Amino acid sequence: MAAVDFPPSVQRLIALLKGMPGIGPRGAERLALWLLKQGQARRMPLADTLARLDEQVILCDACGFYLERGEPCALCEGKDRDRSVLCVVEEAPDVLRLERSGGYRGLYHVLGGRLSPLDNITPAELRVGELLERLKTLETREVILALGADVEGEATAAYLADLLRGSGIEVTRLAQGMPAGGGLDHVDEITIQRALLGRRLFSAGS
Amino acid sequence: MAAVDFPPSVQRLIALLKGMPGIGPRGAERLALWLLKQGQARRMPLADTLARLDEQVILCDACGFYLERGEPCALCEGKDRDRSVLCVVEEAPDVLRLERSGGYRGLYHVLGGRLSPLDNITPAELRVGELLERLKTLETREVILALGADVEGEATAAYLADLLRGSGIEVTRLAQGMPAGGGLDHVDEITIQRALLGRRLFSAGS
Repeated sequence: MAAVDFPPSVQRLIALLKGMPGIGPRGAERLALWLLKQGQARRMPLADTLARLDEQVILCDACGFYLERGEPCALCEGKDRDRSVLCVVEEAPDVLRLERSGGYRGLYHVLGGRLSPLDNITPAELRVGELLERLKTLETREVILALGADVEGEATAAYLADLLRGSGIEVTRLAQGMPAGGGLDHVDEITIQRALLGRRLFSAGS
Repeated sequence: MAAVDFPPSVQRLIALLKGMPGIGPRGAERLALWLLKQGQARRMPLADTLARLDEQVILCDACGFYLERGEPCALCEGKDRDRSVLCVVEEAPDVLRLERSGGYRGLYHVLGGRLSPLDNITPAELRVGELLERLKTLETREVILALGADVEGEATAAYLADLLRGSGIEVTRLAQGMPAGGGLDHVDEITIQRALLGRRLFSAGS
């Protein structure tokens, strides 16, 4: 005799939640029961937001970051942004990580991934053509390649740097080295190697 | 100059997810971005399930467990359930915990909470009247009070035991003692006290 389980609708909800990142079987069940308890009035905003996301959130044609439909892109149209610098990132959320760091106020260009021949991600799958088009109209002095510090990120950076060679635009990349707040015991050998290679003269306030 | 943030629809989704149990600010943002990436076709099942939960999932009038609308209650109508025993639990999910333990195949009654005068939870707020009505029609030999082993659970159990006194129905409660797999170093003093009080003769296979 099988144990009785949740009714099908609740099981379906649990299965859908379980497919989400960071939510395990237990968490999915707990979430489903919580959602059940909330009542329809508190569930509807979530259901509505999910159903209308596609209609409301688009990608900016220029930079590729998320944009509320009908509104101007705060990154591309922002009055006080430094239009002489363009920062190339892999994914849209990377834009926010740079914004929140407070260290950058230029323009952005989201590639939409990185080169990965094994996964059939070639330049055509990324927003590389769009980048070259934009650079024709923008008065860009410097392109910062803020790509991942792993093999595929490096390969993508090398490919882009090659493309931009001879364009008169300065191409830079993020520094690699020790993360803030960490000791030597918290980083791997390659990070230490790169931190050594990139070492700088010690001066007060640097 | 303020850092640019997600568009309003994405921020709303993050805020809604952040209100859910076990989901912190970082997790909510990760989930929202994952949901954005999934595309509408993969988001709609979740949106639909949430929107239609109220319509599809009701509570069984008799036992109080979740029930798919239009289907019979597997707990109350199950052909092979022991109808001489009725197990009283606080909340609907408790039913599944007992079912999954494999240790019980009788009937259930979900109270919908426990007595808590400070929160204005009196017997009228719980399904106590319904319990008494059901016991009139069922041929119950034993009522098992499977309530929480805390102050409010104990008070609720004492109140129900009192109500059922003289009804001819045997009233029992779950054993209290050592949890499976745990040593003395993993339980508190009250648990040890209760495990001592409830000690049993050691016999092979017990």
